Amino acid sequence: MSRTIRLASIPGDGIGPEVVAEALKVLRAVTDGSDVAFDVTEFSLGAARFTATGDILTESDLEAISSHDAILLGAVGGDPRDPALKGGIIERGLLLKLRFALDHYVNLRPTKVYPGVASPLSDPGAVDFVVVREGTEGPYVGNGGSLRTGTPHEIANEVSVNTAFGVERVVRYAFELAQKRPAHRLTLVHKTNVLVFAGSLWQRTVDAVAAEYPEVAVDYQHVDAATIHLVADPARFDVIVTDNLFGDILTDLAGAISGGIGLAASGNINPDGAFPSMFEPVHGSAPDIAGQQKADPTAAILSTALLLDHLGLPDEAARVTRAVEVDIEGRASAGSSDAGAANPAGRARTTTEIGDA
Amino acid sequence: MSRTIRLASIPGDGIGPEVVAEALKVLRAVTDGSDVAFDVTEFSLGAARFTATGDILTESDLEAISSHDAILLGAVGGDPRDPALKGGIIERGLLLKLRFALDHYVNLRPTKVYPGVASPLSDPGAVDFVVVREGTEGPYVGNGGSLRTGTPHEIANEVSVNTAFGVERVVRYAFELAQKRPAHRLTLVHKTNVLVFAGSLWQRTVDAVAAEYPEVAVDYQHVDAATIHLVADPARFDVIVTDNLFGDILTDLAGAISGGIGLAASGNINPDGAFPSMFEPVHGSAPDIAGQQKADPTAAILSTALLLDHLGLPDEAARVTRAVEVDIEGRASAGSSDAGAANPAGRARTTTEIGDA
Ligand SMILES: CC(C)[C@H](C(=O)O)[C@@H](O)C(=O)O
Ligand SMILES: CC(C)[C@H](C(=O)O)[C@@H](O)C(=O)O
Repeated sequence: MSRTIRLASIPGDGIGPEVVAEALKVLRAVTDGSDVAFDVTEFSLGAARFTATGDILTESDLEAISSHDAILLGAVGGDPRDPALKGGIIERGLLLKLRFALDHYVNLRPTKVYPGVASPLSDPGAVDFVVVREGTEGPYVGNGGSLRTGTPHEIANEVSVNTAFGVERVVRYAFELAQKRPAHRLTLVHKTNVLVFAGSLWQRTVDAVAAEYPEVAVDYQHVDAATIHLVADPARFDVIVTDNLFGDILTDLAGAISGGIGLAASGNINPDGAFPSMFEPVHGSAPDIAGQQKADPTAAILSTALLLDHLGLPDEAARVTRAVEVDIEGRASAGSSDAGAANPAGRARTTTEIGDA
Repeated sequence: MSRTIRLASIPGDGIGPEVVAEALKVLRAVTDGSDVAFDVTEFSLGAARFTATGDILTESDLEAISSHDAILLGAVGGDPRDPALKGGIIERGLLLKLRFALDHYVNLRPTKVYPGVASPLSDPGAVDFVVVREGTEGPYVGNGGSLRTGTPHEIANEVSVNTAFGVERVVRYAFELAQKRPAHRLTLVHKTNVLVFAGSLWQRTVDAVAAEYPEVAVDYQHVDAATIHLVADPARFDVIVTDNLFGDILTDLAGAISGGIGLAASGNINPDGAFPSMFEPVHGSAPDIAGQQKADPTAAILSTALLLDHLGLPDEAARVTRAVEVDIEGRASAGSSDAGAANPAGRARTTTEIGDA
C-alpha cells in the first residue's frame, strides 16, 4: 500500500529557494525505499513574481495550492528598501493570505536548545517548549484604517478581533498538546491588565477548557513578564498558548535564545484537515545573503519534521530530527559555527553541504 | 535662592513602600546641605485602599497630586489571585489613569549594563540605550469592547488609536534625545508589515522629523526582530522609539538582559511641563516578598536620578547614578548577589542596607 503525498512547494524569495532545495532533499532521503513518495509541485510566488507580473497570489494559485496535501514554504519578502514592496505587501498578500484562506489557526513553533548549540544565554538550561500561536485573528485581521491621512489631524486605528470560536479551538489544541507532553504544563500569555476585553475572553476560555484537562497545570503571564522569563529561565516553559501578535514576538525571542532563528521551524496548521497545512522556517528571506550558499537550511529541514509528523509519519519525522541533532552536535565538536541568516561565520559549510549532511 | 520641590509620593502596594522609603532617603541625602529641599506629601493609594474604601483615584486625589512639582511612585497592584482585583483594575485605575490624565506622553526607560552586574547573556557588550515609549495612545487607550459576552458567539475587540499629534510629539522628543547622546542613533520599532495604518503613520512621522535631524542615523526594526537583536547584540541600540505596547514588552526584556528588572528605572514625562512628571521603578509590587526587606530599591533610587534630571538638577542626578554604580561594583567584588524582586539570594543585604549604602 504505497502512498503519494502531493506537496506544494513555495520556495519564495531570497534564501527561500536554497533552503527549500535542501528540505526537499531531506524529505526524499527519509522516504527513499519506503512506500511513501512525494509528488512536488513548485509555485513561483513572491516578490520577484510580483515585480514582474503585478500578481501576488491569484485565485487560481490559491485553488491549485489548496488541492495539495501539504505546503512547504521557504521565505517571502524582497528588499525591504524597495518602495514598491512597502507596508508588507508581499507578506500580507502571500503569507498571511495563505494562513487566513487555509484557516491555519494553529501556528506551531517549537523551541529546543540542542546540545552543542551556541545560545546567547550563559545558562539556558534544558529548554524544550512549544508556542501555540493563534493564526487567524487578533491584530492580524487587517481591520485598521486611517482618517485625515497625511495631515496633522491624522488618526490611524488598528483593531484586534478575537472570537470565542477562534480562541477556543486554538486553546483546545494547546491543551491536547500539553496533555501529550511529559511536563503537562500550559502557560497563557496575554496582557489581561490592559487589553481587558480580549484578555478576559482568552482567560475565561483557558479556565473553561482547563476543567476538562485536570492533569495539565495552568498558569498565566503578562506578555511583558513572559519576555523576562524567556531570558531568565526559559526551561520553565512547556506549552505556551497566545494570540497572533504576542506569538509573533515571543517566537522570534525564543528563536534567538535557542541559538538563532536559523534553527527555528514552524507549522501553520489546520487541524481539522479541511485545508492543507503549511510548514516554513521562522526566518525571513534575508535578501542580503541570497544565492550565496550562506543560509543555514536547518530551520527548513526541521520544518519537514513537523510536516512529516502532521502527515502521520512520526518515525520519518524522528529520523529527520535526530539527523539534525547529530549534525548540530558535530558542529560543536568541530568548533565551527555554521552558516545561517543570523550567524554567518568563518569556517561555515555551504547550504548544500549542511543539507547533504 | 533656595528652592523647595513639592513632591507627591505614592508608595503603593507590596514592596512599593519599602523601595520608596529608600528613594526618599537618597533624595534627602543628595540635597542635604544644598539650597534644594523636598516637601513630600504622601498619598496612600493602591490595592489596600481600594479594598478598604472602594476608591482607586478620586478627582480630588488627582487634583491634589497635580499641584505637585513631581511624583515618585513605588508600585501598584495587589495579589494577582484576588478576584476583586481582576482585569488590572488597580493598574488601569491608578497607574494608567495618572499617565493619561497627566499627559505623560514620554515613557522614558534607560537600559544600561553596569560593570559587575550579572546579565543572563554571556556577552552583553557595552549596553547603554534608552527606550522612548509612547505613553498616551496605542492599544492602551481602553477602546475595546465585547459582544455576546460569555456565549459561544462572543467577539472581543481592542482598538489601537494613533494620532499624528501624539506620534509626532514623542518622535520629536526621541530625536532631541538622540541628537544629545554621543551615538546619535535612533531606531523605530513597530510592525509596519502587519499593522499597516498605525505603522505607516509612525514610519512617515519618523521620516519627516528625521529631515530636521541630519546628524541622527535612523533605522527601523519590526518588533519581533527587535527582540532578537536585544538578545543577540543589545549594544547596537542607542535610542529606540516605539508605541505604548511594544515599548512595554521591549523594556521588560531590556530590564531582563541588563541584569534584572530590579535595576530598571523609568520616567513618565510630560515634557511640556503642563503636568507633573512621574518617576517609578519598572518592576511591580511583588506582593510575595512585601514587607520582608528583600526588595532591591536600586530601580526606585535610579528613578530619583531621572527625577532630579527632569527638575534641572543634573549634578545631583549624576551623584545618585554614580553612587549606584559604585554600590553595584561592590556587590560584584564581594561575590554577592543582592536582594531584588527577580533575584533574592543567599548573602543579600536588606532593602534598607542597600538604601544606606
Ligand atoms: C512576515 C510576517 C508577516 C510574519 C508574521 O508577523 O507573522 C513573520 O514575522 C512570522 O512570524 O511568520
Ligand atoms: C502595570 C502595567 C499596566 C504597566 C504597563 O503595561 O504599562 C507596566 O507593565 C509597565 O510597564 O509600567
